[in-house]
Amino acid sequence: MKGKNNAAGRWVPDEINGKPVIPYQGVGKYIPDYNKFAPRVASCANYPNDGNKIVPSLREALERAGLRDGMTLSTHHHFRDGDKIANILFDTVADMGVKDTIWFPSASFSCHKPIINHLESGVVHHIEGSMNGPLGEYCTYGKMKGQGVLRSHGGRYRAIQDGQVHIDIAVIAAPTSDPFGNANGLYGKSACGSIMFALADSQYADKVIVVTDNLVPFPCIPWQIQGNYVDSVVVMDDIGDPSKIVSGTTEITKSPARLLIAEYVARFIREAGIMKDGFSFHAGAGGTALAFVIYLKEMMKEAGVKAGWVRGGSTKYLVELLEEGLTPAILDGQTFDLDGVRSMRDNPKHVWTSPFTSYSYHGKGHFASLVDAVVLGATEVDINFNANVVSHSDGRLLHGIGGWQDCLFSKCTILAIPAFRDRLPVIVDKVTTLCGPGKLIDVIATERGIAINPRRQDLIEAVKNSSLPIRTIEEIKEEVDKICGGSPTPPNVDKDKVVAAIQWVDGTIIDVVHKKI
Amino acid sequence: MKGKNNAAGRWVPDEINGKPVIPYQGVGKYIPDYNKFAPRVASCANYPNDGNKIVPSLREALERAGLRDGMTLSTHHHFRDGDKIANILFDTVADMGVKDTIWFPSASFSCHKPIINHLESGVVHHIEGSMNGPLGEYCTYGKMKGQGVLRSHGGRYRAIQDGQVHIDIAVIAAPTSDPFGNANGLYGKSACGSIMFALADSQYADKVIVVTDNLVPFPCIPWQIQGNYVDSVVVMDDIGDPSKIVSGTTEITKSPARLLIAEYVARFIREAGIMKDGFSFHAGAGGTALAFVIYLKEMMKEAGVKAGWVRGGSTKYLVELLEEGLTPAILDGQTFDLDGVRSMRDNPKHVWTSPFTSYSYHGKGHFASLVDAVVLGATEVDINFNANVVSHSDGRLLHGIGGWQDCLFSKCTILAIPAFRDRLPVIVDKVTTLCGPGKLIDVIATERGIAINPRRQDLIEAVKNSSLPIRTIEEIKEEVDKICGGSPTPPNVDKDKVVAAIQWVDGTIIDVVHKKI
Repeated sequence: MKGKNNAAGRWVPDEINGKPVIPYQGVGKYIPDYNKFAPRVASCANYPNDGNKIVPSLREALERAGLRDGMTLSTHHHFRDGDKIANILFDTVADMGVKDTIWFPSASFSCHKPIINHLESGVVHHIEGSMNGPLGEYCTYGKMKGQGVLRSHGGRYRAIQDGQVHIDIAVIAAPTSDPFGNANGLYGKSACGSIMFALADSQYADKVIVVTDNLVPFPCIPWQIQGNYVDSVVVMDDIGDPSKIVSGTTEITKSPARLLIAEYVARFIREAGIMKDGFSFHAGAGGTALAFVIYLKEMMKEAGVKAGWVRGGSTKYLVELLEEGLTPAILDGQTFDLDGVRSMRDNPKHVWTSPFTSYSYHGKGHFASLVDAVVLGATEVDINFNANVVSHSDGRLLHGIGGWQDCLFSKCTILAIPAFRDRLPVIVDKVTTLCGPGKLIDVIATERGIAINPRRQDLIEAVKNSSLPIRTIEEIKEEVDKICGGSPTPPNVDKDKVVAAIQWVDGTIIDVVHKKI
Repeated sequence: MKGKNNAAGRWVPDEINGKPVIPYQGVGKYIPDYNKFAPRVASCANYPNDGNKIVPSLREALERAGLRDGMTLSTHHHFRDGDKIANILFDTVADMGVKDTIWFPSASFSCHKPIINHLESGVVHHIEGSMNGPLGEYCTYGKMKGQGVLRSHGGRYRAIQDGQVHIDIAVIAAPTSDPFGNANGLYGKSACGSIMFALADSQYADKVIVVTDNLVPFPCIPWQIQGNYVDSVVVMDDIGDPSKIVSGTTEITKSPARLLIAEYVARFIREAGIMKDGFSFHAGAGGTALAFVIYLKEMMKEAGVKAGWVRGGSTKYLVELLEEGLTPAILDGQTFDLDGVRSMRDNPKHVWTSPFTSYSYHGKGHFASLVDAVVLGATEVDINFNANVVSHSDGRLLHGIGGWQDCLFSKCTILAIPAFRDRLPVIVDKVTTLCGPGKLIDVIATERGIAINPRRQDLIEAVKNSSLPIRTIEEIKEEVDKICGGSPTPPNVDKDKVVAAIQWVDGTIIDVVHKKI
C-alpha cells in the first residue's frame, strides 16, 4: 500500500476507499480551492400541489427515490442508542435485494449492532461515520469490506457541503413532521430536541425521506428541517425508543477521582481569569463534564459572574444556568436530557444550532472558535498534548469523534481525563490514533494535577499563584507510569491493512487505524 | 432584434443583456435539467478566530470584497421606502471610481431615485429587480444602458440558487447584528421584522457585507441571517428611516368601491366553502386586502371558523387573528407594520419564512401552492384572466412583481381590482404586459361583480346559489367599456427596443416591456 507521512508525522495511504487522500498539513494550512457541491435543481412541477408527500411505506419511498446497488444512505444519530430507523432502513434495503450500499450516519451506537449482519451479507459495503462500540470493534478487526472514514460533526457537514460525500438518499427520523416534510425534534413521544445533524443531508442529498411517528397538520412549527428539501414522508408507529433517546435523569459521576478533576477544571477556569462577566464555555454530556458545570455554577454564583452564552450538548444543569439567569443563552448542538428538550422547545434563548454554524471549518468562521473554554475528554494524550478520542490503547476503534475536533478551536481547550483507566496510563508516549494536534490543546486536567501546554505561557502565568496543582505533563506521566508500570504496549496490528481513516476538520487525513491482529 | 413567440403568444427576444432567453413554455412545462449554483468553499483559516468581522467603513468592506467594474451588487428591500443603504452603497461605489455595476435589489422604491444619477454616470449599468416608481419610469423610456429583468420574490431566490444571477457582493442591511454577522430584523431602531429576502444573497454571494445600526454582542438571537455566510460587518448611524420602514398605523381603504370589493372577496371565500376549519389564506398589505381581512375575520367569528394558518405580509389585522385565536400560526414573508414586527419578535407562532420556503418554484414544493385562497391586485386583466401587475396601460413600468406570480399557485387565486382606474378600464382586450397566465387566476372581484374563470366549474357550482353578483368577465368588461369608452389605447412603443423582461417563476421569459416613445 502506497502512502506518505503527513505533517503530524503519521503515515497515511494515498487512497481510502479508492479515493485520493490529502494528507494532513497542519492547523489552518490546507485552504480549499474549489466550489461547494451543487445539488440538482428541483421543480415544484414534480411535487404535489397540495404539499402532501406522504407515501405508505419506507420501502415505497426508497423505490421512488430510485434506490440501487452502491448508493450512499444517510441517517442521523439524535436518538442515540434508542434509534430504530437505521436498522429498519437496512432491513428494508436487504429485503429489496440491494447490495453494496454505504451507510453514512452522523454516528452509530450499540443499538446498531444488527448492521453487522448487513455488512456480512454485502447489503452494506462499509460505514462512513462514527462507530461507537460493536461496529467500531468489527471494523478494527478488518471485517468491513470498505474502510471506515471518521469525521467530526463539523467535518461531516463540510464533507457533504464540499461534495466529498455525495448522499444519494437521506432518511431523516423526525419526532414531528407535517405531510410537506417540515420537521422538528421538539414534540412527540420521540422528542429528542434538535435534529440539526440532518441539516446537510436535507440540503445536499439527491432524495430526502422524512420518517416520523408524530404526523401533524401543516405547518409543523418550528421547522428545523425544511420541507422544501424533502421528497417524501413516511409515517411509522415507532421511530425510536424514548427511554434511550433521552433519559429523565442524567447521572453525575460518583467517582471521587473524576469529581476532583471536575473541580480542578472549574477552578482552573476561575483562576485563569476566564470566568468573568460575558464569558462562554462548552461542556458536553458525560459524568465529569456534568460535574464540572455544577462546580462552575457555584463559583459563578459566589463571584457574581454571569456568562455571555454557553454551548451545549444541553442537560438540566445547563438549563438551570439559563433559567437562573446565569447565562442569557444556550447555543445547543444536541440535547441530552428531557430538561434540555423542554427548554429548547419553550425557551427562545435556548437555540438549536447546526453543524454548519457551530462547527464547519469550511464556513466564514464558526461558533466553536468563539468559545472561551471547552471541556472535553480523550482516550489518550501524549506529552506534546496530541490526543486520541476514537481508539483505546489496545488498538480497538470504539468511539466516534463527535464535535471533539471542532471544539479544539476554543480559546482554551481543556481535556478532563483520569490519569489512568483500567490500570493503563492515559498520558502515553505516542497516542494510538492521532485525532487532535497538541497545538490546539491547552490544558490537561487529571486527578493527579493539571498540565498546561507550554505554548500557553499566558495561562501558565495566569494561574501561577493559584493553589491549583499545576505540574508539567512529564511529571504527571512519570508518576502514573510508575504506578502502572509504563506506557501501554502498542497493539499488534497489520501495517498493510488500513481499516479506517481519521479526517481532520478540513478533510485532510490526520491518521489511520490499522487492522488489529 | 431576433426573437420568437412564447407559449403565451408573446414575442420575446433571443437575448436579454447578452444572455440567451428561454421563452415561457406554459405552467409547469419547463423542467430544469441542471445543478444549483456552487459557491466557493470558504475556510475558517481566513476569518478571525475571535469572530470579530467588523471593518471601519462600507468603503473598506467593499475594498476587501474586491469591488471592481462590472460586478453585481445586491441589496434587500425590507426597509421599503425608508431604505438608506442602497443610495449610500452606490455613492460609495461612485467615490471608488467603479463603473458598470449591476444593481440586483430584491426591490427598489421611490427613495432610490438618486440611483438615476448613477445610471446616468455609468456607475450602475442596469437594475435587475423590481423598479417601483421613478426607476421604472426611467427604464420605460429606454434610458438604462442594460435591460431590466423583473422576477418574483420566489423567482429571485430561484435565479440566485440556479446560478442565473451571480452576486459578487451582497450588502445586507440588518436592524440588529453581532460582530460575527448573525443578524435579524426584529430589534433596534430600524426593526422591520424579517430580513429573509436577503437569504439567498447570504448563501450564494461571493462576499457578504452586513451593515447595521444596532450592534449587539455575540450571539445575536435569533439569527435570520447566519454569520457563517458573512465576510464583514459595518456599523453605521442610520441604515433606514424608521418612519418609512414600518408605519405605526396601517390605512384601510376608505373608498366605498374598494370596501365593496373587499367584502365581495370575503363573502366569496365564505360562500365557496373555502372558509372552513383549518383553511388558509394570504392577503398582502394594501387597502383592499386589509379591508378583506377585517370582513373575513368577522365572518369567521360569526361562523365559529378557525384557520389552520395564514400567510402574511403581516399587519396588525393578521396579528389580531393570531392573538384572538382565529389562527394558530402566521407564516410571514414580510412585515408591514409595527404590530407585525412585535408579533414576529415575541410570538413563536408568528414565523418568518423565506423566499425559498414560501415561493421558490425550483424547490421540492413551496408554501404558496398550499394556500387555500390568496387575494392579490393587478393593473390589468384580460377576458382570459391573464393579468398584468407591473405596467400601466400607458406602457409605463411602475411596479414590481413582488410575490404576486408565486402566489398564483394558491388553490384559489382572487384578483381584487377596481373595474376602472383613472377612467381607464382594468379589464382589457390584451394586457400591456403579461405577468401571470389566466390558467392560474380563478376569480376577478370588482365592485361591478365577480367573474369566475370558466376553468373553475367547481367554484362556479359552489357559489351558484349565493347572493353574490357572479357575472361573466365579458359582461363586466362590456359594462365598464361603455362607461369608459372602450379599452385603453395601446401605448406607443418602439418594438425594436426591449427595456425590460418579465421572468416567469421558472426563469423563462413570459413577456417584455418595450421602450415607450
